[in-house]
Amino acid sequence: MNEEQIRKLLVEVSEGKTPVEDAVSSLRDLPFEDLGHARVDHHRNLRCGFPEVIYCQGKDPADLTEIAASILSHSPWLLATRADEAAFEAVKAADERAEYHERARCITVRKEAPPALDGKILLISAGTIDIPVAEEARVTAEIMGHTVETVYDAGVAGIHRLMAETKKIQEADCIIAVAGMEGALPSVVGGLSDVPVIAVPTSGGYGANLGGITPLLTMLSSCAAGVAVVNIDNGFGAGFMSALICRKRQRE
Amino acid sequence: MNEEQIRKLLVEVSEGKTPVEDAVSSLRDLPFEDLGHARVDHHRNLRCGFPEVIYCQGKDPADLTEIAASILSHSPWLLATRADEAAFEAVKAADERAEYHERARCITVRKEAPPALDGKILLISAGTIDIPVAEEARVTAEIMGHTVETVYDAGVAGIHRLMAETKKIQEADCIIAVAGMEGALPSVVGGLSDVPVIAVPTSGGYGANLGGITPLLTMLSSCAAGVAVVNIDNGFGAGFMSALICRKRQRE
Amino acid sequence: MNEEQIRKLLVEVSEGKTPVEDAVSSLRDLPFEDLGHARVDHHRNLRCGFPEVIYCQGKDPADLTEIAASILSHSPWLLATRADEAAFEAVKAADERAEYHERARCITVRKEAPPALDGKILLISAGTIDIPVAEEARVTAEIMGHTVETVYDAGVAGIHRLMAETKKIQEADCIIAVAGMEGALPSVVGGLSDVPVIAVPTSGGYGANLGGITPLLTMLSSCAAGVAVVNIDNGFGAGFMSALICRKRQRE
Amino acid sequence: MNEEQIRKLLVEVSEGKTPVEDAVSSLRDLPFEDLGHARVDHHRNLRCGFPEVIYCQGKDPADLTEIAASILSHSPWLLATRADEAAFEAVKAADERAEYHERARCITVRKEAPPALDGKILLISAGTIDIPVAEEARVTAEIMGHTVETVYDAGVAGIHRLMAETKKIQEADCIIAVAGMEGALPSVVGGLSDVPVIAVPTSGGYGANLGGITPLLTMLSSCAAGVAVVNIDNGFGAGFMSALICRKRQRE
Amino acid sequence: MNEEQIRKLLVEVSEGKTPVEDAVSSLRDLPFEDLGHARVDHHRNLRCGFPEVIYCQGKDPADLTEIAASILSHSPWLLATRADEAAFEAVKAADERAEYHERARCITVRKEAPPALDGKILLISAGTIDIPVAEEARVTAEIMGHTVETVYDAGVAGIHRLMAETKKIQEADCIIAVAGMEGALPSVVGGLSDVPVIAVPTSGGYGANLGGITPLLTMLSSCAAGVAVVNIDNGFGAGFMSALICRKRQRE
Amino acid sequence: MNEEQIRKLLVEVSEGKTPVEDAVSSLRDLPFEDLGHARVDHHRNLRCGFPEVIYCQGKDPADLTEIAASILSHSPWLLATRADEAAFEAVKAADERAEYHERARCITVRKEAPPALDGKILLISAGTIDIPVAEEARVTAEIMGHTVETVYDAGVAGIHRLMAETKKIQEADCIIAVAGMEGALPSVVGGLSDVPVIAVPTSGGYGANLGGITPLLTMLSSCAAGVAVVNIDNGFGAGFMSALICRKRQRE
Amino acid sequence: MNEEQIRKLLVEVSEGKTPVEDAVSSLRDLPFEDLGHARVDHHRNLRCGFPEVIYCQGKDPADLTEIAASILSHSPWLLATRADEAAFEAVKAADERAEYHERARCITVRKEAPPALDGKILLISAGTIDIPVAEEARVTAEIMGHTVETVYDAGVAGIHRLMAETKKIQEADCIIAVAGMEGALPSVVGGLSDVPVIAVPTSGGYGANLGGITPLLTMLSSCAAGVAVVNIDNGFGAGFMSALICRKRQRE
Amino acid sequence: MNEEQIRKLLVEVSEGKTPVEDAVSSLRDLPFEDLGHARVDHHRNLRCGFPEVIYCQGKDPADLTEIAASILSHSPWLLATRADEAAFEAVKAADERAEYHERARCITVRKEAPPALDGKILLISAGTIDIPVAEEARVTAEIMGHTVETVYDAGVAGIHRLMAETKKIQEADCIIAVAGMEGALPSVVGGLSDVPVIAVPTSGGYGANLGGITPLLTMLSSCAAGVAVVNIDNGFGAGFMSALICRKRQRE
Repeated sequence: MNEEQIRKLLVEVSEGKTPVEDAVSSLRDLPFEDLGHARVDHHRNLRCGFPEVIYCQGKDPADLTEIAASILSHSPWLLATRADEAAFEAVKAADERAEYHERARCITVRKEAPPALDGKILLISAGTIDIPVAEEARVTAEIMGHTVETVYDAGVAGIHRLMAETKKIQEADCIIAVAGMEGALPSVVGGLSDVPVIAVPTSGGYGANLGGITPLLTMLSSCAAGVAVVNIDNGFGAGFMSALICRKRQRE
Repeated sequence: MNEEQIRKLLVEVSEGKTPVEDAVSSLRDLPFEDLGHARVDHHRNLRCGFPEVIYCQGKDPADLTEIAASILSHSPWLLATRADEAAFEAVKAADERAEYHERARCITVRKEAPPALDGKILLISAGTIDIPVAEEARVTAEIMGHTVETVYDAGVAGIHRLMAETKKIQEADCIIAVAGMEGALPSVVGGLSDVPVIAVPTSGGYGANLGGITPLLTMLSSCAAGVAVVNIDNGFGAGFMSALICRKRQRE
Repeated sequence: MNEEQIRKLLVEVSEGKTPVEDAVSSLRDLPFEDLGHARVDHHRNLRCGFPEVIYCQGKDPADLTEIAASILSHSPWLLATRADEAAFEAVKAADERAEYHERARCITVRKEAPPALDGKILLISAGTIDIPVAEEARVTAEIMGHTVETVYDAGVAGIHRLMAETKKIQEADCIIAVAGMEGALPSVVGGLSDVPVIAVPTSGGYGANLGGITPLLTMLSSCAAGVAVVNIDNGFGAGFMSALICRKRQRE
Repeated sequence: MNEEQIRKLLVEVSEGKTPVEDAVSSLRDLPFEDLGHARVDHHRNLRCGFPEVIYCQGKDPADLTEIAASILSHSPWLLATRADEAAFEAVKAADERAEYHERARCITVRKEAPPALDGKILLISAGTIDIPVAEEARVTAEIMGHTVETVYDAGVAGIHRLMAETKKIQEADCIIAVAGMEGALPSVVGGLSDVPVIAVPTSGGYGANLGGITPLLTMLSSCAAGVAVVNIDNGFGAGFMSALICRKRQRE
Repeated sequence: MNEEQIRKLLVEVSEGKTPVEDAVSSLRDLPFEDLGHARVDHHRNLRCGFPEVIYCQGKDPADLTEIAASILSHSPWLLATRADEAAFEAVKAADERAEYHERARCITVRKEAPPALDGKILLISAGTIDIPVAEEARVTAEIMGHTVETVYDAGVAGIHRLMAETKKIQEADCIIAVAGMEGALPSVVGGLSDVPVIAVPTSGGYGANLGGITPLLTMLSSCAAGVAVVNIDNGFGAGFMSALICRKRQRE
Repeated sequence: MNEEQIRKLLVEVSEGKTPVEDAVSSLRDLPFEDLGHARVDHHRNLRCGFPEVIYCQGKDPADLTEIAASILSHSPWLLATRADEAAFEAVKAADERAEYHERARCITVRKEAPPALDGKILLISAGTIDIPVAEEARVTAEIMGHTVETVYDAGVAGIHRLMAETKKIQEADCIIAVAGMEGALPSVVGGLSDVPVIAVPTSGGYGANLGGITPLLTMLSSCAAGVAVVNIDNGFGAGFMSALICRKRQRE
Repeated sequence: MNEEQIRKLLVEVSEGKTPVEDAVSSLRDLPFEDLGHARVDHHRNLRCGFPEVIYCQGKDPADLTEIAASILSHSPWLLATRADEAAFEAVKAADERAEYHERARCITVRKEAPPALDGKILLISAGTIDIPVAEEARVTAEIMGHTVETVYDAGVAGIHRLMAETKKIQEADCIIAVAGMEGALPSVVGGLSDVPVIAVPTSGGYGANLGGITPLLTMLSSCAAGVAVVNIDNGFGAGFMSALICRKRQRE
Repeated sequence: MNEEQIRKLLVEVSEGKTPVEDAVSSLRDLPFEDLGHARVDHHRNLRCGFPEVIYCQGKDPADLTEIAASILSHSPWLLATRADEAAFEAVKAADERAEYHERARCITVRKEAPPALDGKILLISAGTIDIPVAEEARVTAEIMGHTVETVYDAGVAGIHRLMAETKKIQEADCIIAVAGMEGALPSVVGGLSDVPVIAVPTSGGYGANLGGITPLLTMLSSCAAGVAVVNIDNGFGAGFMSALICRKRQRE
C-alpha cells in the first residue's frame, strides 16, 4: 500500500465513507493467503512482475497441489522448478493443462499465452552436461514472455565454436552464460558484448570443480565487466533476471 | 571486424581496389595498441560500450600516465578505479582535466559531457562502512551517462529505514544493493521490486564475515529472484552492469 | 555435591554418625549409571534442568530401549531426537506412552504432564523446507513446559508476510528464527524485537548455501544485536535454549 | 507505529481532529534522523530496548561526533565499541562525560545512572588473551543495568580452576563463556549449569585456530545443550544478549 | 585458418578464382559439426594433436552413439573416459571395434594402429586404491602412440619400494605420479629425476584427505621443482599431457 | 640394509666368499614381494615393528586373499582394517584362524599369541557414536601386545563422568581420547595427565561438525600440551601410535 | 586431591584431629594462585610433569614479570614461548638467570640443572625456513631434561640427504619431524622408523601452502602409521610431547 | 650411486684394490655439503639437470652468501628467487658477477654463458599485474638455456588480443600461461595449441580471487586437455618445468 493509496483511504475515513475498523483492516491486512504450511503471496505478481514460483524439492505432493491451485486462482501462469514426475502429477491434479519440461525439470501451466514481449535473450552453455540448467533458464524466460535463442556446447577450449556465434552475441539484448568445469565462458562472452551477461555456474565437473564452487568463484572474479552471477545451478534465477532486464524496454 | 566488413573488404580485393597484402594486414591487425607493458584495447568502446577502464592497483605511475594518454587519444572519457593520490597525479599528467573522487577512490576525465541517458539507478547501502564501495558504483554509472539516486545506511536490522524508501525502490529502473556484515539487504530489496537488483558484497565486518565471503554467499543464496551478484567490493562492476541494463532502454 | 553438603557430611563423620568408608563412597560416587555402552546421567535433571536427551542417530534399537528405560526410571519425561520409525518402536518397548512426532522426527514420553510454565516462545521459519527443524524446536520447548506459537513460511523476500506479524514479535518472551537459503530472517526479526532471538540455520537450499554453512555465517554476522546462533539444523538446541531463557522468569 | 496507534490516529481523522495531510505524514515519517552519512535510529530504544550502538571502526571522527550528539539528544546513555583514542576524543567532543574503557576498547556516556536491574551475569574467560573481548561484554551488560561477575583465565586444560567456581556457575542467571584456542569452555560450563550460556569465540591463537573459526565451530558443535553462539570476538553481542535474557525477569 | 591460408584465399579472390560469397563462407564457417546437443570439433585433431575425447558421465547413450560416430567419421581413433557398461554399448553401436578397459573406465576404438612414437612414459602410483586413475592415464597415453611402463603400489612410507626403481625413474622421458592419501610421491620422485613429472592427486583416502584436496595441495606445494599438477582423479589429463611432452621429440 | 650389514657383505666380497654378482643382487634387491597389484613389504616388521597392515576399503576380495597369504607367510600376526563381511571371507580363505571384530570393522589373525608387553593404554571416548573408532584403536593396540582399558561415553558436557575416572587417567602409560561433536575431550584429559595423549577426531555429528573437521581443528588447537592428533576416524593410527609409545619401555 | 588423600583427611576428621572447617577448606581450596589477570596453576608440575609454560604473545610485560615470579616461586625451571626482546626483559626482571633463545623465540630460567634423563630425541626439519619452529621444540625438550639431536635441511626432494641419516633415525627413541611446503617429511621418516614420530607443520611457504594448512593436512593423511600431529608452528607442543614419550622410560 | 657404480666398486673390493672401509664410506657418503644451517645438494646438477636454486625469503644474508658461494664452487650458474635488495647484496658478496632482475625479484650469476638450447617457450600473461610472476618464469627458463618469447596483457576479456597471437601459439614448443583474476587464460590457450601448457595462477585480484585460490582451481578444472598447473605465483616452477620439457628434445 503506497502513499497515494493511504491518502485516498484517509480521505474516505475523514469523509465517513469508510468506517475506522475497515480502514484498520486495510492497513493491517496484507495480501497473502495462509495455507498453514505455506503463505501464498498473491501480491507478488504486481510487486515483482511474476506470480510466486514453486520450488518443488522437499515439498509434499498434496501440498503442491494446494499451492498450485492457490496460485492459479489468481494468476494465468504458473512455473514450478526442481520438479520430478511426482511433482508433475501433483500440479496436474490442480490444473490439467500442466506441461512437464523433462530436461529442465520444470512444470508450466499456461491458462493463456504469455505476453509476447520483445527482448532477445541469448542462452549459451559450455558443455552438454550444463544443458539441464540452461533449459531451466529457457523455460523460465519463455513463460515470462521472452524469446530465447540457444547456443549449446560452446566451451572456451574450442574457442572457434564460440567465435562462430559472434553475430548472435552482438545482437542479443541480454545473454545468459551457463558453465561448469572452470567456468571461463562468461569472461570471454562478456568481452565480446555490450549487453548484460548473467553467469550461471553449474555443479557439473569433478575434483577441483568443488561442486560448482570453482566456476562460481571464476565468474565472480571475471576480468570482463558487465557480468553478474547467480547461484550454482540456478537456471531459474538467470532466466528470471534476464526477463526483468528485457522487460524494462517493453515497459516504456 | 564483422561479416559485413569482411564482405566489403573482399569485394574491394576482388575489384582490385585493395591490394592483397593490405587486406592481409586488415584481417590480421586488431585494434589494440601494444605499449609493451599493456595492450590498450581501443576497439572496446565499440564492442562493449565503454572505453577500457584502468584498475590502478599495482600499476607503475609512469605506466599509468602512458595508458591514460593512450585511452584518451581515442575516447572522450576515462575512468580509473582503486586509485590513490599518486595514481591521480599520474593520470593528471596525461590530462589536466582529471578529477579525483576520494571516497570512491576513482579518477575520471571528461573531455566532453557524458551522454544524458535516462534510466534511474537506485543505489542502496546497508552501513556507513559500505559507502566507499557504493561511491565507486555511483561514479562509474554517472560517467556512463546515468542518474544515480542514493539511500545510504539502510540496513535490514532497522527495516523501517528501508521501508521508508519503498517508493524510490518501486520507481527505479535498476537497483544496486551494497552490504557487508551478513549481506541480507538484497534479499529484502529484491522482494520489494520488479527490476533487476545487482548485489555487491563488501569486506566490511569481522569474524564470520570472512572478508566478505559471507555476504557474497548470502546474496547468491538469496530467496528473492531477480538478484545477481558481483565480486566482493566490486562497486565498479555493479555500476557498469546497471549502466548496461539501463542503456538498453535508450538504444531502441 | 556442593560446599554445604560437604560440610554436613564432614560434621556427620566427625560426630561418628557416618563411617569413614561411607563418606569416601559419597565423595567418590557420582550419580550416573554405567550401562557399558552408555553412561546415563541421572544427575542432569537437577544440574541442567532437564533429563538427558537421547540423540537417536547411529544408536542400536536395543541400546535405545535400555537407555530410555533407564532415563524413565528417574524422570517423568523423555525426549528423543533424530528418530526414525525403528527408534520409535525401541522407545515404545520401554514405555507404551511414547508418542512419535513425525515432522519433527522426535519421540516424547510424558508419564505426567509437563509443568505449565509461562514464557511465550514465538517460532518463525522462513520456508516450508525449514519446517522439520522448526518442529523439532517446538516439540522440545513444549515438553519442557512452554507455550510455542508458530509463524511458518515468512521469509524476508516477502517482507510483508513477516511485517504482518509485528504484534506477535513484540509480545513474545523469546523468539526462535529458523532459516535456510541465505538466512536473513533473524537479522530482520532481531531489529524488530527487544527479546532474545535464537537463530537456527538449516541445510535446506543448494549451491552457495553450502549445506547450511551460508545461513550459519549470515546469522553470526547479523547486523542486529540480540541474536545468538545454534548449530545447523539444531532445532532441539534452539528449543532447549529458549526454554532455559523463559524458565528463568518462573524460578523467581 | 502499532495497530493501537493507527486506530487512534484514524479516529482522530474521522472526527476531523487531525487533518488528512498530517495523518499522511505520521504514517509516512519514521523516527530516524538522516544525517546524510548515517540514519540514526531513535526508535530503536523503544523497539529493541537500548539506543543504537556505535561501531567505531572505519568511521570518520567528525561523523562520530555528529552521530554521538544525535543519539545523546534522545537517550541518557551511549555505548560505542571498537573505539581507539581518536574515537574517544570524537565522542568526548559531543559530551564531556564520555569515559574510555581501554581494555574493552569501548566508550560509554552516562547522562544518568543506568537502571539497577537484577539478573546476575557470570562472565568466564579461558585465557588472558581473551580478556579484551570479555571486557567488551562486561561494559555492554553493565551500561544496560546488570551486575557482571568475572572469572578470568579458567581454561579447560586446568579444569580444577573452573571446578572451583561451580558455586558461581550454579548461582548465575546467565553465563557468558569467552574462549579462543580450541573453544572447549562453553561445553564444560554448559554441562554444569541450567541457565543459558552465551559462547563467544575469539581470534586469539594461531595455526589451526584459523582466526577464531575453530572455536566458533567447536562452540556450535557443543555436546552441551543450552549454549548459543555469537560472532568471533563479538563481546558486545554477548553482553547485549545476556542483558536481554536477564531483563525479561525485571519486566514482569 | 591461419595467415597463409587467408593469403592464399585472398589471392584466389583477387584473381577471380574464388567468388566473394564462397570466401565469406570459408572465413565464417568453422570446422565443427552441430549435432544440436553437441558441437563436434573436427578441427581439433589438427589443432591440438588428437581428436576430441568423450567425457561420458551424464551423457545420454543415444547421444553418445551419435557423437562417437561423428568423431570416427573424421578420425582413426576414439577415446571415451568415465565410461560404464552402458556407455560402452553405446559406443559399440557406433563401431564394433570398440574396446572396454574396465579398471580404467575407458573405451577406445582403433580403426588403425596408433603411430608408434618413442618417448618412454613411466607411470608410478602410490597405493592400490590409485590404480583406476593410473590406468586411465595409461590407456590415454597408449592410444596416443606412446609406451607406458608402470610401477604400482610404491608409496613413500615404504621408500625402498620406490628407491628400487631409481633406474626406471632416471631413464624415463616423462613421469606420471599418481597418489591419494597425503600425495607425497611426486615430491620424492621429482627430486630423483630430471624429466617433467605430472602429478595426479586422487580422492582415495578419508578424513583429512578431503576428497583429494589434500594431495592436490601437497603436490602444488611440492618442494621439488619440475612437478606440475592436474585435477583430482584426472588420469586422462595426465596421460594426455605426458603424451604431448613426449610427442615433441618425435616431431623434429 | 644397514651399515653393519653392508660392511659384512663387503668383507665377504673382499675375501672372495661372496661373488660380485650375488652382492650386487643383495644390494639391489629389497625385501618386498611384487604381486603386481600390490608390493607386500616384508621388511616392515623389522623396520617399523609390525607387519604391513591391510586397509581393506576398495580392495578386491581375491587380491585381499593373496595379500593376506603373503603377509602371513612372513609374520605370525595380521591386522586388516575397514573390513566388511566380504573382506573377512577373503582373509579367512587365506587363514582359517581369522577373527572378525564387528564394531571395530577389523580382522585379526593370530598364528601365535602376541607378545605380552606391559604399558597400560587408557582409551576414553566421548559419545556412543564414537565407539567404532575407539574399538579399531583397541583391536590394533591389543594385537600389538598391549593391555587396553576403556572408558566409553564420558564427554565433557557431563564432566563428572570423566572426573570419576581421574585415577585411571593418572595411572595410564598412554591415553587415547576419541571424540566427535566439538572434540573437547582431549583438552580436558590432557590437563589431568602427565602421559602422552593421542587424540582421534571422529566424523560423528552434523552441521558445524563438518564431517570431523571441527573436532580435528579443536584437538590441534588444544590449550593442553601433551596432545597430538591423528586423522579423522583413524582409530588404527591412534592404536598403533600408542603401542609404539608403550613399547619403548619394554625395549630397554 | 585423590581418593587416598580424601580417606586420610576423613579419618583425621573422625578422630577429631582435623577440625571440620579446616577439612572444608582442604576440600574446597585448589592449588592455584589468582593474580587477577591470570590464575597460575602450581599444581600442574605434579599433575602434568612440568610447571605451567608462559605463552608470551599478547601478554603485558608487567603481567609477564608477575607470572614468571609466581611460577619460579614454586618451580626450579621456567619456559616462556613466542617471546620477543620485551618479554625477555620482563622475565629477566623476575629472575636474573633468564636466558633468551633468539631463533627459538623462547626464554628459559634454570634455577638448577634439569634432570638428566635418557631418551634420545631426533629432530629433523625439512627446510631452513622451518628452523625457528624446530628450535622451539629443541629448547622445550632440553629444559625438560632430554638430549636432542638435530638434522636440519633434509627435505624429501633431496631424499639422499635424509637417507644419509638412516642410522640416527633408527637409534632415536622419539622423532620430531618439522616441515612446511608440502609437509611430506613425516611420511618418509615414519616409514623408516619404529618409534613415535611427532609431526609439526609450519606456515613457511606460499600459495597452496595456505599458511600451513596444507602440510597439516598432509601429515594427518600420512600413509605411514606411527605419526601424530601437533598444531601449525607448534614447536613447543612437539618438544613437550616427545619429552613425555621419552620420560616414561625413565619412570620405571 | 647407480647399479653400475656399485658393481665397479665391488669388483675393486673383491680384487683388493679398494679397502673395505673406503667402500663403506663410498656407499654411505652422499654428495651434499653440510653448512649446519643448510645442506647444499651438489649432486642435484647431475640428478635433476640444474644446480640447487635458492629461495631467498626468510634466509639470513650471511647464510645466503655462504650458500651462494657453496653452489658456485660446483656450478657455473646460480639462480636465486624471491630476492630483495639485501639478498642481492648478499649474493654479490659471494660473486661480483651477480645480476639483479628487479621485476622478477631474481638474482642470477653466470660464470659462463648458459648452453644455447633450442625449444621455443612462449610466455603469455593475462594482466599487467601478473608480470612479476611471468618475469620470474622468463629469467628461470633463460638461465637454463632456452629462448623465451613474451606476450603480456592478453587476457580473455579482450580475446582478440590473444587471437592476434595465434601464430606464436602454434609455433611454440611449450607455453606458459600466467593469469590471476579468474584464470581463464590457459583454458583458451590450451584449446588453440598442441603443445604442453604450464598454467600459473597469481594472487593478483581481490575478493573472490581468494589470494589466487580461484585461478588455481579454475586452471585445474580446465576444460582443455594438455594443461598442468604449478603453485600460485610460482613463476620459477613454471619456467623450470617448461625448460625440462624443451630440454628433452635437445638430449637426443
